[in-house]
Amino acid sequence: MNKRLLILIWTLVTVLLLAGCSTQPRLGGAVRPAVHSAVDLDTVRAGAFDTGKMWTFDYPPVDYFERTYSFRPTPQWFEQARLAALRLPGCSASFVTADGLVMTNHHCARGALDAVNREGENLPQDGFYAATLEDERKIPNYYADQLVLIEDVTDEVVRAFEQGKTDEERVRMRQNAIAEIEKRYAEKTGLICNVITFYNGGRYSLYGYKRYTDVRLVFAPEQELGYFGGDPDNFTYPRYALDVTFYRVYGEDGKPLTTSTYFPWSAAGAAEDEAVFVLGNPGRTNRLLTVAQLEFMRDYQYPFLFRALDNLVRIFSDYLAKHPDKKLQYQTQLFSYSNGHKLYEGRLKGLRDPITLAKKRDFERTFRSSVATKPQLQRQYVALWEEIERLQTEKAALFAENNAFTFRRIGRSSLFGIAFDIVEYAKQMRRPENERDQRYRGNALEQTKDRLVSAQVDVELERTLLEFHLTWMRDAFAGRNEHFNALVGNRPVSAVAAELLGSTILTNKETATWLVEAGPDAILASTDPFIAFIVKTDAQATDVRRRVSDVESREAARVQMLGRALYDVYGTSIPPDATFTLRMADGVVKGYPYNGTVAPPVTTFYGMYDRFYSFGKKEPWWLPDRWQTPPPTFTMSTPFNFVSTNDVIGGNSGSPVVNKNLEVVGLIFDGNIESLPNDVLYSSEVERAVSVHSAGILEALRSIYNAERLVKEIRGGKTSQ
Amino acid sequence: MNKRLLILIWTLVTVLLLAGCSTQPRLGGAVRPAVHSAVDLDTVRAGAFDTGKMWTFDYPPVDYFERTYSFRPTPQWFEQARLAALRLPGCSASFVTADGLVMTNHHCARGALDAVNREGENLPQDGFYAATLEDERKIPNYYADQLVLIEDVTDEVVRAFEQGKTDEERVRMRQNAIAEIEKRYAEKTGLICNVITFYNGGRYSLYGYKRYTDVRLVFAPEQELGYFGGDPDNFTYPRYALDVTFYRVYGEDGKPLTTSTYFPWSAAGAAEDEAVFVLGNPGRTNRLLTVAQLEFMRDYQYPFLFRALDNLVRIFSDYLAKHPDKKLQYQTQLFSYSNGHKLYEGRLKGLRDPITLAKKRDFERTFRSSVATKPQLQRQYVALWEEIERLQTEKAALFAENNAFTFRRIGRSSLFGIAFDIVEYAKQMRRPENERDQRYRGNALEQTKDRLVSAQVDVELERTLLEFHLTWMRDAFAGRNEHFNALVGNRPVSAVAAELLGSTILTNKETATWLVEAGPDAILASTDPFIAFIVKTDAQATDVRRRVSDVESREAARVQMLGRALYDVYGTSIPPDATFTLRMADGVVKGYPYNGTVAPPVTTFYGMYDRFYSFGKKEPWWLPDRWQTPPPTFTMSTPFNFVSTNDVIGGNSGSPVVNKNLEVVGLIFDGNIESLPNDVLYSSEVERAVSVHSAGILEALRSIYNAERLVKEIRGGKTSQ
Repeated sequence: MNKRLLILIWTLVTVLLLAGCSTQPRLGGAVRPAVHSAVDLDTVRAGAFDTGKMWTFDYPPVDYFERTYSFRPTPQWFEQARLAALRLPGCSASFVTADGLVMTNHHCARGALDAVNREGENLPQDGFYAATLEDERKIPNYYADQLVLIEDVTDEVVRAFEQGKTDEERVRMRQNAIAEIEKRYAEKTGLICNVITFYNGGRYSLYGYKRYTDVRLVFAPEQELGYFGGDPDNFTYPRYALDVTFYRVYGEDGKPLTTSTYFPWSAAGAAEDEAVFVLGNPGRTNRLLTVAQLEFMRDYQYPFLFRALDNLVRIFSDYLAKHPDKKLQYQTQLFSYSNGHKLYEGRLKGLRDPITLAKKRDFERTFRSSVATKPQLQRQYVALWEEIERLQTEKAALFAENNAFTFRRIGRSSLFGIAFDIVEYAKQMRRPENERDQRYRGNALEQTKDRLVSAQVDVELERTLLEFHLTWMRDAFAGRNEHFNALVGNRPVSAVAAELLGSTILTNKETATWLVEAGPDAILASTDPFIAFIVKTDAQATDVRRRVSDVESREAARVQMLGRALYDVYGTSIPPDATFTLRMADGVVKGYPYNGTVAPPVTTFYGMYDRFYSFGKKEPWWLPDRWQTPPPTFTMSTPFNFVSTNDVIGGNSGSPVVNKNLEVVGLIFDGNIESLPNDVLYSSEVERAVSVHSAGILEALRSIYNAERLVKEIRGGKTSQ
Repeated sequence: MNKRLLILIWTLVTVLLLAGCSTQPRLGGAVRPAVHSAVDLDTVRAGAFDTGKMWTFDYPPVDYFERTYSFRPTPQWFEQARLAALRLPGCSASFVTADGLVMTNHHCARGALDAVNREGENLPQDGFYAATLEDERKIPNYYADQLVLIEDVTDEVVRAFEQGKTDEERVRMRQNAIAEIEKRYAEKTGLICNVITFYNGGRYSLYGYKRYTDVRLVFAPEQELGYFGGDPDNFTYPRYALDVTFYRVYGEDGKPLTTSTYFPWSAAGAAEDEAVFVLGNPGRTNRLLTVAQLEFMRDYQYPFLFRALDNLVRIFSDYLAKHPDKKLQYQTQLFSYSNGHKLYEGRLKGLRDPITLAKKRDFERTFRSSVATKPQLQRQYVALWEEIERLQTEKAALFAENNAFTFRRIGRSSLFGIAFDIVEYAKQMRRPENERDQRYRGNALEQTKDRLVSAQVDVELERTLLEFHLTWMRDAFAGRNEHFNALVGNRPVSAVAAELLGSTILTNKETATWLVEAGPDAILASTDPFIAFIVKTDAQATDVRRRVSDVESREAARVQMLGRALYDVYGTSIPPDATFTLRMADGVVKGYPYNGTVAPPVTTFYGMYDRFYSFGKKEPWWLPDRWQTPPPTFTMSTPFNFVSTNDVIGGNSGSPVVNKNLEVVGLIFDGNIESLPNDVLYSSEVERAVSVHSAGILEALRSIYNAERLVKEIRGGKTSQ
């Protein structure tokens, strides 16, 4: 197993936004066209919470909470909540006892389980339980961050931004100011300091984190329990997964951290209709984008991404079906592709639902007319929407070609990527050392060079990836690139791929290394088909990239302006887009209409056994032995998972769900299939966050894992040792 | 509880097809508009089985079975299957032991449970088990029909039809011929004889039924088990319902019938991917209608029907919420409205899915070009589609007004209906006796008169029904009826309804009876607002009805011709529309994509307990005591319900599901939500029939009901007494 799935998944969004291909993919059987009803799109209105409920601690929504739940939290409540919450790499977590016990998801801990695994063990598969404190295992290169400092630095950043004369300069000045502030605060406080951009640049906050670096593994269930139902049940509900792991934070003295800020365990756990709060770090949302930006996303970015994921799932499934021995090597990769595939299918469906964009249009209409009616705002902001819309047209015109010239992203064949890196190396090496990029200088150079040719290429897998890569390059160039025409033309991609793989020297580590060692001139003169293609198209590609970067700067500057307009009009009455920083999301435990009937607010262990037997005891609904024959003391009717209307997204994995008394009632681990389009629009009609129920966690620990030490600590709030 | 829900439901289709109102209803949150995908409707093709798999015993599809399942049933197989299958009023059933034990659904037996209920018992609620043969209770006025005779009478019927000179005459001649054939065969054989119309009149068969009239109740579970999940889970899957009842047929000697034709119990029951066959009596499908007819249905009939059901559900729910004491009286009515509401929502969704009609268009295109390329067919049939299309336009023009003048159908206030019947009585009574309709002559007259005023009207319920009735009458007349304008005009319907209820004498049984007794002249001169309205509009209404009847005759004649064209082109390679006669539907036990994941092929009892506890032990997922504490011998992992691709519809309730050896593996009781549009198009992508699993039935009888006698008989194939 490699690193954390979750990070991979939601960073796909960021990483892949500028990948390209204008062809709309076939979306598979699931996306059926119109069931016409009498909905008149012009009558659709934006909802009060379309922009969501991921409230910041900078601007806690006390009045709204009081109005909604007759509950006005005190400053102490917020401080306690903020300090008991933690951020892990790619995930969220929280302190749940005074002795530094930390709760997060099993799927957040896959990397950690790998890292502490010992010879003869298979912890990622079999799980782990430290029967004593001494058995808890330190996770190398791991940490947990606690948000201890928040300061508004908007004025300083905005001042810097406004000093720039061109869009490009403004964006650069802002970057410099942010770097300077972060450095200054880090030196002053010794904390991990980040400037967080809210409202696309409407507000800026300095967040200072206390970082705990001694984090030890205490408990994890078997993979089958943590990921019960596997890819099919992923992003769905009713659900039955014990997606929980416990860590413990240790202090610098090597002893369990003593902390007064933690979420004690609730006696009963989440109950139907109860108000509950999620404290966690949602990764990224796009709810404040303009309609034009959303349309670009719908028509270019997401379709390409979905197409790439669709192909990858097919390619890797076929490959693993033929080579079951390669499972260990590629299974996690396939998991992440399947997960992304399902996610982007849902998101694309959301964007293609005309009601989604009708709501967005209505929001924008209101926002624009607020700007238009105030002279001061009018002067500053009124042109922004049209300017951003024009920039989308420019981006659209560049999208396909830029995408075709992007060699190191998801869905690409690795040979173009290797060739690209080698050519880049050659180009840099021809310059004097002080004119090269950082990683081609001094000590960094050797590392960079080593990474150029790091592994033998799997030719069979590469062939299918290359066929796909060539297909969409052909779509993207659309006959307009002479070099690509010469390389591929209208010949079947399978024939071209076979030919290229037959003639390239890059599939073999030795010959590739030989080429790198031969030096820049030899590289740039190489007849290897991949290298030669990169070299010949280098000027074209560089030009396209420059134009894309120019458009992006202009867009970024306008987006920042728009963010300020948003803040000027709405203030903090709507929360900013997610930024993988601490938020609190309020909601209610609640079932919803589903499948022609109703999904219950909670599920029980009975449902897990139903799926286990219903599918004939097969993966991914298989149960380990100790679960197949539970002891008579096991109470199967204990609540196991539940749904609530809280606003969560990737990055929220591992977030505690707490009640008004800040007691743990559950643990976020997913959203239902209806919630997938919530990257652009929050709704609570049928969209739900999915959690493990606190009572289910305790019952499993007690009756199945006999984790007495842990049960006592969780119940008592501290270790008994 | 009143009569059988099922009959009520699927006869709604027939009963209400000519109800009217052209306004399209709002379809509620569930019907969202377009999720655009790249589906080009012109490329959609009809599927091979769009017209379904409800094969007749007249034309058994042996070659298709052999091709598909490598299984060529013998004539003996078909005979055994036909004779072991039974038809009940509104439902299907089958012999399952040599001693006349009959299996059907619990929901088919509600009326029977009512009928055999004794003082102090509540069998419809609590269920029943006859511990000995002597305890089995005879159901009054009940019967089971066995199909023992099939003869092709096409030539005789068609000859009669063709002798008519006008469309109206042709239709009447056909009716007469059918009546004559039925009478002749009944006299000759002593059987219940019906002429069955296949392919809209392409073929006619005489079906002779042996009728068993001594049917006794053996076993029924509690209502909570039979209808577990209630209206919410109705028409859905995964499902957990013990929807089974056992009867026993007795011979004329008063002893259990000895029969050699029955379906023995399978040892294992239905297994995933197994080929299974459903023997039963599907009620009605509309798969052979032309596209123009389907569009009429989509735009007129179904929207009106759905609107009526939507209102009735709301009206009766509100009423019962206010008057829980009236539950006994109205609950079954509300059930049937809810059921119909869900059914027609699904059907309307299906018709509004452009892919459905695109498939139908493709089928019609192929059919028409087959006709066009054969000179003989061309001459006879080529104009039919356009003629039928024109008739739809005529029907559409009459729809609203005819509907407004239809006073005795679903969703109407009963006062207009009572007034209509009284006026009709007065009109008839003015004629000499021999010119009156049958029911106004001799002995029938007194009965008819008694029924005119049969009950006190519930004024509170009537007020809401009347408000709805007046609203859609106003929509339908659209200002064009002077008498309605005078009665209602543009005043709020609530005010009008209150006024009418204040002044009418029909809400009171005594005053209404007084009016009837006062005689025809007094009735026709009455100032009661309902009576007066009917009298004043009588000439208009009669004219509209005559025009509708004329269009219908012309359509019926063309539909019959089209049926013959269909038969001439396709023969029996496609099955005829359902006719509530015995069919066999082949299929496979198979899960399907659902809710973002996969629905399992079978469910287990675990799932029932999950829903019981998940909803907090609340109705309609409540379980009776003996189910709450099952004995340790109860095997909860036993398969309970399952899904298969068999083609079923209302009327199939109670059909046995058998394997190739004609052993019972399950019992049809429902379809999933995706299957609701199958009245016009069969598909097996995600559409499934839902059955109780044979193993689940046996396990419940054995472990929960201790029905040892029954278990022994089912296992052994005969009683042990």
